[in-house]
Amino acid sequence: MKPESSYDTYRSKLAKIADLGFAGAVLGWDQQVYMPKNGARARGRQLATLSTLGHEMFTDGGFGSLLDRLESSAELNSEQRINVALTRKDFERKKKYPDAFVEKMSLVTSEAFGAWHEARTKKDFSIFKPLLEQIVQLKREETRLLGYTHHPYEALLEDYEPGLTVAKIDEVFDRVRKELFPYIRQILSRPQPDHSFLMKHYPKAKQWTFSEKMVRQMGYDFDSGRADDAPHPFCTTFGPGDVRITLRSDEHEFTMMLFAAIHEAGHGLYELGLPLEEHYGLPLGSALSLAFHESQSRFWENNIARSLPYWKANYPVLQQEFPENLASVPLDAFYRGVNRIEPSFIRVEADELTYHAHIYIRYLIEKALIEGSIEVADVPRVWNDRYEEFLGIRPSNDSEGCLQDIHWSYGSFGYFPTYSFGSFYAAQLAAAMKKQISGFDGLVEQGNLAPILEWLRTKVHSKGRSLNSEELLIQTTGKGLDVGDFMDYAKSKYGSIYGL
Amino acid sequence: MKPESSYDTYRSKLAKIADLGFAGAVLGWDQQVYMPKNGARARGRQLATLSTLGHEMFTDGGFGSLLDRLESSAELNSEQRINVALTRKDFERKKKYPDAFVEKMSLVTSEAFGAWHEARTKKDFSIFKPLLEQIVQLKREETRLLGYTHHPYEALLEDYEPGLTVAKIDEVFDRVRKELFPYIRQILSRPQPDHSFLMKHYPKAKQWTFSEKMVRQMGYDFDSGRADDAPHPFCTTFGPGDVRITLRSDEHEFTMMLFAAIHEAGHGLYELGLPLEEHYGLPLGSALSLAFHESQSRFWENNIARSLPYWKANYPVLQQEFPENLASVPLDAFYRGVNRIEPSFIRVEADELTYHAHIYIRYLIEKALIEGSIEVADVPRVWNDRYEEFLGIRPSNDSEGCLQDIHWSYGSFGYFPTYSFGSFYAAQLAAAMKKQISGFDGLVEQGNLAPILEWLRTKVHSKGRSLNSEELLIQTTGKGLDVGDFMDYAKSKYGSIYGL
Repeated sequence: MKPESSYDTYRSKLAKIADLGFAGAVLGWDQQVYMPKNGARARGRQLATLSTLGHEMFTDGGFGSLLDRLESSAELNSEQRINVALTRKDFERKKKYPDAFVEKMSLVTSEAFGAWHEARTKKDFSIFKPLLEQIVQLKREETRLLGYTHHPYEALLEDYEPGLTVAKIDEVFDRVRKELFPYIRQILSRPQPDHSFLMKHYPKAKQWTFSEKMVRQMGYDFDSGRADDAPHPFCTTFGPGDVRITLRSDEHEFTMMLFAAIHEAGHGLYELGLPLEEHYGLPLGSALSLAFHESQSRFWENNIARSLPYWKANYPVLQQEFPENLASVPLDAFYRGVNRIEPSFIRVEADELTYHAHIYIRYLIEKALIEGSIEVADVPRVWNDRYEEFLGIRPSNDSEGCLQDIHWSYGSFGYFPTYSFGSFYAAQLAAAMKKQISGFDGLVEQGNLAPILEWLRTKVHSKGRSLNSEELLIQTTGKGLDVGDFMDYAKSKYGSIYGL
Repeated sequence: MKPESSYDTYRSKLAKIADLGFAGAVLGWDQQVYMPKNGARARGRQLATLSTLGHEMFTDGGFGSLLDRLESSAELNSEQRINVALTRKDFERKKKYPDAFVEKMSLVTSEAFGAWHEARTKKDFSIFKPLLEQIVQLKREETRLLGYTHHPYEALLEDYEPGLTVAKIDEVFDRVRKELFPYIRQILSRPQPDHSFLMKHYPKAKQWTFSEKMVRQMGYDFDSGRADDAPHPFCTTFGPGDVRITLRSDEHEFTMMLFAAIHEAGHGLYELGLPLEEHYGLPLGSALSLAFHESQSRFWENNIARSLPYWKANYPVLQQEFPENLASVPLDAFYRGVNRIEPSFIRVEADELTYHAHIYIRYLIEKALIEGSIEVADVPRVWNDRYEEFLGIRPSNDSEGCLQDIHWSYGSFGYFPTYSFGSFYAAQLAAAMKKQISGFDGLVEQGNLAPILEWLRTKVHSKGRSLNSEELLIQTTGKGLDVGDFMDYAKSKYGSIYGL
């Protein structure tokens, strides 16, 4: 077989696997948004079949020797070589999982989901504890199966942010702990801005009318996407021209739908900007990492849509939509209201500063569980102690505490740091953009976000997985991750809001 | 391998194939109801991948020898034997298609769809003609690949109504031609009932409120289904507890949404009544035939929902919903209005009597094309002549004429007769039900349709593919297909409406 036709075989195989994956995404989306309740059982097995078939196609023996042939070929161009090299990396990683391990993990996590749900409803960690113990044992085993250089947690991190080390996370969070947390305490010593106008009655349909305008203004194209209601907001991709978002809303909490829409559309713009048409199912058509994905959603949500220039452009439109709630609220008061900093127990409702305490706590606990320095029985106590230490509040029960997030119940360890790193990347990208795009704030004040999207498309989205996060940051901002940009952003913005 | 474990292997293989099929159904449904337009290209390839994988799994060599083992085993129970025998039949049929033929057909039909669409828009048969010629050639070849006893058309019929013969269709339609068509002419000599009140303004949301009530009254369960808007109404199954319908509506044509909802829910009740949970992906969990499927939708739509007892129960509710349109229209006038008989060019809008002329014409033409007694070039003329002969009207262009239906463009020959046979089966089932369920009309007048659904579930739905249509009719009604029941129904109902 000639190299060129080997590449075609490789490409067509990965395209088929992608077809199965995207089909699974459609079924998963429908499961969340439209499926009637009696459809659940069959849907579970259909999703399992699609994912098993995809996994079997990817790991079958013939694929390894196809990759061998491609690697030894001199006739591939540079993009083709990158695709093959990254596929090899994925292939070697997937091969390390014995069938028995995958089966065990799938069995335990599907039982764990129910136990977690029951434990949370009953506010009783002991219901979830035995399952979480099994999961932690399995994750420790997984780190041994996968191997690692410095720390077992890094074996798991690789799924979410390739190349990230425990040393780097510790260094970054150390600065967060020393600079951000004291700064939050300073903020909390100041008078709080009013935000009662956000809790008035905002009819859902009108919320959506406004949210849709904002999402279109970002450049999200409804010919290549749509928005539906779901219990939790998410973004999902079905192919190059079909990237959808889901939303939830609260008629008495105005910010929930809007910022979720902008956040998810931020993910959506990244997906739509990937060269997926050209590299369908291939690494160059895929997002760089979950952490970098999160930088895109958080950039739009926080750095753009919670900024003063953004509301200079859009607040008059919002006031027109809801005169009864907002006519008497000046722009500056509105801006301060949507940027109120206030410690709380619930991660997904946290403001953009205290959020990182939530993440840091989860990171410390999951790292300690994986390295074995604490056991599952210690989790509730450590959790509550840390909330008291970092945020000055102590959960009154485990549902407010360590049972709050679903991640561990499905075996996800190493995911949490991506939320904070996404924010830090976003701040660094925003700082670079302000230097590189002339009149940045002025553009935002005019509601002209096209140059910003264009910058992201050219410098980030179109790169696929060709670089890792650190390399991409160097290429776009001239330096690797520097959490100082986030600290500068935080102090400049909140210093002005809170008069510090 | 022991027979029991062979059966498990067989069962699990067909379940996986069903998973792929149902996944394809979800993707196909989404394509019609929610997919943004730029998603079309990738969706096409994803659907092709799912269907190819399913086909490959079904026809692979190992499956044939697995069936051999099962057939020679003495340890299967009678249901298992039925499943295996019907799967053998499907397997042998599928095996007769050479890959090159399948590929050619898929290529030609995908091109033909575009040509048909363009031809219909431009009212110009010549655009579609060369593609239809290729399709007819391929279908003729297909009859030779599949083989047949009496008439090549029967080889194709087998996909839609196993066991049905050309002789039987000719015999049935001969009676339709001799009895029904003259009867329609008699009807048309009488004064037409008024139906102008159906064309007033009926807001869509209120139409759906009423349609939903009617569909629930039939026993369609929204915990196992849902209804969405689509360009064409259809029913689709995603698994044992998830059978959905789609609807279209016209705010100035009241009957469109309601009768489509009832029709599709009739299909849906059949699917929900199949023993699919127990026989997931197996013949006993599948519908008997497309023709029998159609009997279920038409039974509910025509024999129930266009009957006087039905409107005795439901017209007061409808009047309350739309007092501005219907308060002054008496029950009897409404009943006559929704049962107006009037020749037209468009099959999907035809009343329940002239409908069979539309089908007969299509049947005569497609049979003649397959046997070679006419060629594609003759189609427009034969079509128009037949409309004039049977219905006394002549299409003024090919869009009103032979370009009206999509079926031939995707290679579907043998499908059309199922529409008429569905009606004839429905009339025969209805006649039997009236004898077997005491106080049938009274139940309908009270809106109590549960005993009717129960009858269908027990005698029809639960049987899966264990019998063919003729056998099932004998078992439920004491005789094979007798179109006399339909004629009696037609004359009794329309005799009273038109005073004949």
